[in-house]
Amino acid sequence: MSDQPIRRIAIFGSTGSVGTQALEVIAANADKFSAEVLTAHGNEELLIQQSLKFNPNIVVIGEERKYAKVKQALSNTNIKVFAGERALEEVAAMDVYDLMLAAIVGYAGLKPTLKAIENSKAVALANKETLVVAGDIVMRKAVEHRVPVIPVDSEHSAIFQCLVGESRNKIEKVILTASGGPFLGKKPNYLVNVKREHALQHPNWSMGAKITVDSATLMNKGLEMIEAKWLFNLQPDEIQVVVHPQSIIHSMVQFEDGSIKAQMGLPDMKLPIQYAMAFPQRIPNEFPRLDFKKFNTLTFEEPDLRTFRNLGLAIDALAKGGNLPAVMNAANEVAVFAFLRNRVNFLDMTDVIEKTMNKIPFIANPTLEEYFESDGEARTYAADIIKL
Amino acid sequence: MSDQPIRRIAIFGSTGSVGTQALEVIAANADKFSAEVLTAHGNEELLIQQSLKFNPNIVVIGEERKYAKVKQALSNTNIKVFAGERALEEVAAMDVYDLMLAAIVGYAGLKPTLKAIENSKAVALANKETLVVAGDIVMRKAVEHRVPVIPVDSEHSAIFQCLVGESRNKIEKVILTASGGPFLGKKPNYLVNVKREHALQHPNWSMGAKITVDSATLMNKGLEMIEAKWLFNLQPDEIQVVVHPQSIIHSMVQFEDGSIKAQMGLPDMKLPIQYAMAFPQRIPNEFPRLDFKKFNTLTFEEPDLRTFRNLGLAIDALAKGGNLPAVMNAANEVAVFAFLRNRVNFLDMTDVIEKTMNKIPFIANPTLEEYFESDGEARTYAADIIKL
Repeated sequence: MSDQPIRRIAIFGSTGSVGTQALEVIAANADKFSAEVLTAHGNEELLIQQSLKFNPNIVVIGEERKYAKVKQALSNTNIKVFAGERALEEVAAMDVYDLMLAAIVGYAGLKPTLKAIENSKAVALANKETLVVAGDIVMRKAVEHRVPVIPVDSEHSAIFQCLVGESRNKIEKVILTASGGPFLGKKPNYLVNVKREHALQHPNWSMGAKITVDSATLMNKGLEMIEAKWLFNLQPDEIQVVVHPQSIIHSMVQFEDGSIKAQMGLPDMKLPIQYAMAFPQRIPNEFPRLDFKKFNTLTFEEPDLRTFRNLGLAIDALAKGGNLPAVMNAANEVAVFAFLRNRVNFLDMTDVIEKTMNKIPFIANPTLEEYFESDGEARTYAADIIKL
Repeated sequence: MSDQPIRRIAIFGSTGSVGTQALEVIAANADKFSAEVLTAHGNEELLIQQSLKFNPNIVVIGEERKYAKVKQALSNTNIKVFAGERALEEVAAMDVYDLMLAAIVGYAGLKPTLKAIENSKAVALANKETLVVAGDIVMRKAVEHRVPVIPVDSEHSAIFQCLVGESRNKIEKVILTASGGPFLGKKPNYLVNVKREHALQHPNWSMGAKITVDSATLMNKGLEMIEAKWLFNLQPDEIQVVVHPQSIIHSMVQFEDGSIKAQMGLPDMKLPIQYAMAFPQRIPNEFPRLDFKKFNTLTFEEPDLRTFRNLGLAIDALAKGGNLPAVMNAANEVAVFAFLRNRVNFLDMTDVIEKTMNKIPFIANPTLEEYFESDGEARTYAADIIKL
């Protein structure tokens, strides 16, 4: 890519796990990337620090009350400072960047991502809720605006990598690998006593708190199944989950001739982040390499749907479609939030989600507004159950 | 490929393991392929049978004394019959086919394959000796005539599949998997007593006799390393062998960003045969699918170069280049021939190859003629050692 122009990156969610790793990639490849936009929800300290280092064109702080502090800290620079959720959408609509890294956690990432697509900007998508909530609308818009949506999730990046050069060949199924999380092999009588601290200990991947809890409940894999459906235009029965505790095979594609392609490597989010930012080019790096002497045994097993009931709920939502994935996602966000604050126990999260899915009226083909309404209703209902 | 014209296939070596499986693929996909040319060395019975079934344009029987029998058997057809080694080259130069499946065993496959390339025909290459002996010349000619050379070997097909869509991305290394053959874990004191019958029992793959013995000695993997060098334009140190006894991962590519792509499936030669014939399209089929419930553990280990010394010799030949791979290949063909006739024991094969490699003068940049001469000298010398 040395003869390519510098790619201007807008990192929406620059202070999170994906955002900070993306900035490491940019720092290591200053001839290829620039950080033009940085946004954070509430971590103004880190946002300021990043801004002083990377000198972006624009920064946005989500929490409006922190605007003055950020503005003040950057007063000796030319960096433009905005604040508030609306500003995220406004900046996403500006013509100051080439690729949005959509790394805002949860549902809040949806609207700016839609704006980026409408703005004909490439999207590197680290926010899976965007597709879980409104995948049909997002992907339809992406096709309409001819915008590539490149996944950052290691599993979907793996599938995406397996699909390059195969556009004329039909997918028979995708096989999403799941580490199984920290509680692989455990049963409900163990899980009922699990605390926040246990759930945040992921065996293989270093990630944010929300996704780490989702990995422990296997909801993360369920969200990924729904994400895969939209990203790769699949039918529900073309998406399979296999537990692979070593997290070396990041996912696989089986084509209609039976041939399977897999993408593998050490579990390191920096690789799919870099891949999505640089696609279709790969960038040489010094990340540690997989050594088969060390990882000499790869194993596979079926997920335990009786214990990890969240995955079963997600499979239901995937099969039924409509607003059900959005409802499930909203209830899950509320439940995880409550769990992280020790307000519900590990297994209660599933009950909250299930009750919410049963309560909110089903809509087969929602409009974007109806997705938003379903999301809101689900959050309210789930919070009521927990008495948040 | 339904809207594509029928691809006319010339199967050079139609009565062998690859050839017969290719005909099964053609029979199952009569809307996509026709068998236009069939050739056999000495198995005139099967050649006649195949010809009556597939009604090719031309057949060639290698052993000239069998010409009359084949001609007679096909006298009620319009099939043209030729005989002799020269006829193979002449037919390869004709404009009666679109793709040559080069499935002649051993060195004899080289000349017809070169003719096909000069004739600007696509080549599906099942004959690895073609590249081992004269890979530089073959690939240079392929570039010159803009002819795709699509590997049929499962390992190289795997690598080829991993590389589609990655043309702009540098390969860091390829990882060839080796089953380890029937004697994995055995030591020389066991191998010295091994007989033909043992060596022909491959644990995973059903193949011809020559390649099955080569798999037992690991020479096959050595030949594949050399083949990989030419097919994918690699340096010797960019080619690694990993023993993977389950033969599920057929080989891998590691790119310069550290990402590894693998192609997987049940060990079934029909898949890479079909892939090579139909490339770039995949064809739906009913071949059995890989089931991770059954293959729930994949293991990897380093090859035992002390016991399987043939692989070490091949690594030497790969590193030194010139005529050494051709010399090694010729000596190996003679040694395997002798072993299959119980004229040398299993370990003696290595000595025959090593002595021949040490004897024949090294040529750094041979012409095609010099490759042929080195091959001839090596055969004569190896046969002398064995007193064939």
